[in-house]
Amino acid sequence: MLYSNYFPKTQKQDPTSAEAVNHKYLVRAGFIDQLMSGSWTLLPFGQRVIQKINQIIREELNQTGALEMALPLLHPKEIWARSGRWDDLKVDEIMYKLKDKNDREYCLSFTHEEIVMDLLGKHNLSYKDLPIKLYQFSTKFRNELRAKSGIMRGREFLMKDLYSAHTSEEDMLKYYEEVKKSYLEIFKRIGLDVYVVEAAGGVFTDRNTHEFQVFNPAGEDTIYYCENGDFAENEEIYDPKLTKCPVCGAEIKTIKSTEVGNIFPLGTKYSQKMEVYYKDENGENQPIWFASYGIGPTRVMGILVEVFHDDKGIIWPEAVAPFKVHLVGLDLADQAIKSKVEKTYKLLQVEGIEVLYDDRQDISPGEKFADADLIGLPYRVVISKRTGDKLEVKRRDKKDTEFLNFEQLLKRI
Amino acid sequence: MLYSNYFPKTQKQDPTSAEAVNHKYLVRAGFIDQLMSGSWTLLPFGQRVIQKINQIIREELNQTGALEMALPLLHPKEIWARSGRWDDLKVDEIMYKLKDKNDREYCLSFTHEEIVMDLLGKHNLSYKDLPIKLYQFSTKFRNELRAKSGIMRGREFLMKDLYSAHTSEEDMLKYYEEVKKSYLEIFKRIGLDVYVVEAAGGVFTDRNTHEFQVFNPAGEDTIYYCENGDFAENEEIYDPKLTKCPVCGAEIKTIKSTEVGNIFPLGTKYSQKMEVYYKDENGENQPIWFASYGIGPTRVMGILVEVFHDDKGIIWPEAVAPFKVHLVGLDLADQAIKSKVEKTYKLLQVEGIEVLYDDRQDISPGEKFADADLIGLPYRVVISKRTGDKLEVKRRDKKDTEFLNFEQLLKRI
Repeated sequence: MLYSNYFPKTQKQDPTSAEAVNHKYLVRAGFIDQLMSGSWTLLPFGQRVIQKINQIIREELNQTGALEMALPLLHPKEIWARSGRWDDLKVDEIMYKLKDKNDREYCLSFTHEEIVMDLLGKHNLSYKDLPIKLYQFSTKFRNELRAKSGIMRGREFLMKDLYSAHTSEEDMLKYYEEVKKSYLEIFKRIGLDVYVVEAAGGVFTDRNTHEFQVFNPAGEDTIYYCENGDFAENEEIYDPKLTKCPVCGAEIKTIKSTEVGNIFPLGTKYSQKMEVYYKDENGENQPIWFASYGIGPTRVMGILVEVFHDDKGIIWPEAVAPFKVHLVGLDLADQAIKSKVEKTYKLLQVEGIEVLYDDRQDISPGEKFADADLIGLPYRVVISKRTGDKLEVKRRDKKDTEFLNFEQLLKRI
Repeated sequence: MLYSNYFPKTQKQDPTSAEAVNHKYLVRAGFIDQLMSGSWTLLPFGQRVIQKINQIIREELNQTGALEMALPLLHPKEIWARSGRWDDLKVDEIMYKLKDKNDREYCLSFTHEEIVMDLLGKHNLSYKDLPIKLYQFSTKFRNELRAKSGIMRGREFLMKDLYSAHTSEEDMLKYYEEVKKSYLEIFKRIGLDVYVVEAAGGVFTDRNTHEFQVFNPAGEDTIYYCENGDFAENEEIYDPKLTKCPVCGAEIKTIKSTEVGNIFPLGTKYSQKMEVYYKDENGENQPIWFASYGIGPTRVMGILVEVFHDDKGIIWPEAVAPFKVHLVGLDLADQAIKSKVEKTYKLLQVEGIEVLYDDRQDISPGEKFADADLIGLPYRVVISKRTGDKLEVKRRDKKDTEFLNFEQLLKRI
């Protein structure tokens, strides 16, 4: 991809009112744009990161036998009334509701438990049809009061939500543990250290749930945990009288953290309220055991920037970087140099490597280097009068540069 | 993929109130589910078809230099007021509007011209930054009165929308023609015969536009055209006094048709109303030339069923079929047969072929064949006591079956 054809170009100034690092860098580097408070456009760079995050999630969830689908975003009141959540005051506080010209009432997808339950209820399920595991990448709308953390807390945001339906609590918990492992693998592949933390169920369930937390100073959550990994609880459920880990006796520590995923063992609450049953071996109606599982890909992009950056810009983990190589051409007025850069650009593409080629002629070397550091691709490759037969290669996360030939570069990356 | 693990299973009865063929077959075969009038869930089969359609679109648009992004769906009134469309009565008729608890007004994404213009306006564009070509796959909301054509006309539906910004009418029209060719290639790859038809601009522009139409008896549009391909107009703009093609003199014919894509040479209407300019070579503000281009992937799925079906079910074109092979295992109580089917299933997967394996043991051969015909995958492969060393292979669109060994099957598909 030629950077001259890319949109938008980088910005030198921090956006006004930006507090979070992810907000500043993602906007300045051209990954996201703010439409209004809590509402973000994914620009082409951002879209590429999200597609890579989503593909990792997709591959891992498919391994668990889950099937991808897509549910509508505009929901009729009637279905939400069946679970009782239409009138739940805590839900009402942050749910967008609207009426059409015939006074029919709707809400925007706050989450999709009710819609999945309604779908299951239409299919006369027998015990042979279960378990069912369905997921989607879909927009959620929540009119959050605090929307100050850049792309980490949006009023409209992308969520991967998975729903599973089972004949028994045992089967539900078995799959719940399988998804927990799958999530750990997903975050490992993305490049994030996550901690599984016990938490409250919020407006979803009275049971305790599990959150996937990334410890970081900009986090909105407070976690109490034991360093040996034997205990971790969200402040919401933590008992302040507890000072030692109940498992290993180590001291309980506290840290700021950001939630990137959450899994909910919902049980039969939704199936009982909405009267969604399966037929057991005797032809009797039984309530479906139900669980849901979320990951916020846009929030993951935000936390990656919070964790991986320096004072010059973002440092993307390779697995989700929008391109692998930032090819910087200098002295492009010299035709011999220009040909050499273009040849390298083509050869890298032939090798299947994603390259962003900064082909601009009216920009100084210093500006090009600053843009490369801000955008944060894993490898910077410079070709100029000075580099001779070699390519100047620098990893974004290292200080030193190396002079390599093309074959050596391929091996390196 | 094991069909026993798939959701949902086929239904024997047509859905109540279904009129359109695509509605009946897509619901019965388990591709879509109706949440409410004009609102559809993409079930796993449907999601696979849409992902294939989208990938073809993505590949072709990337060839034109367009960049993928994702815009928000909830829009503030202020931006739509700038173009004048917030108060356009024809738009207001079918636009969903809402207020939040602070009485701020919003609409749901009816289309995205205004939002793209607002985005461009924030970036101080110079003539060097243009053209800019941005596209997305995104949800549109339109409260259409007539929502009776199955998935072909939804109140909430998926659209691929592309927007291009240029320094001049000439450059805009050059890219407009490039997208026209790209669209023809997209529909050819999908397997649809489309006709480019001149039409009115609706609530988008006073200029004439071009529609991509699929002639079919269930179509909602009426097209006047010349069989030599020299003339085609939508009823909206057709002059009934015209009876001969103005180019070749052939008789003008009329036919029912369905629109699957539409391209709009919008000109400077939006940039002038919204005051979005670029700086020319002299540093002077100039209005941006703008065009937009839509394809409805869910509507494309619907028209494919209208065009490609028989009295038993759907006949998917290979390029967008959810799986390539429907592997039907019979006599699975016989362990030798079962092993043979499972081996074939694995070998096909190793070859990278997408297989749906009907592994159900309590279903009769007749029911399995009926399901295979209804779902409509391109190749049915049967293994049973009767097939011996061979595989019984039948193309969904042919009557005859062949007995092939595995190597011959691979060559055939």
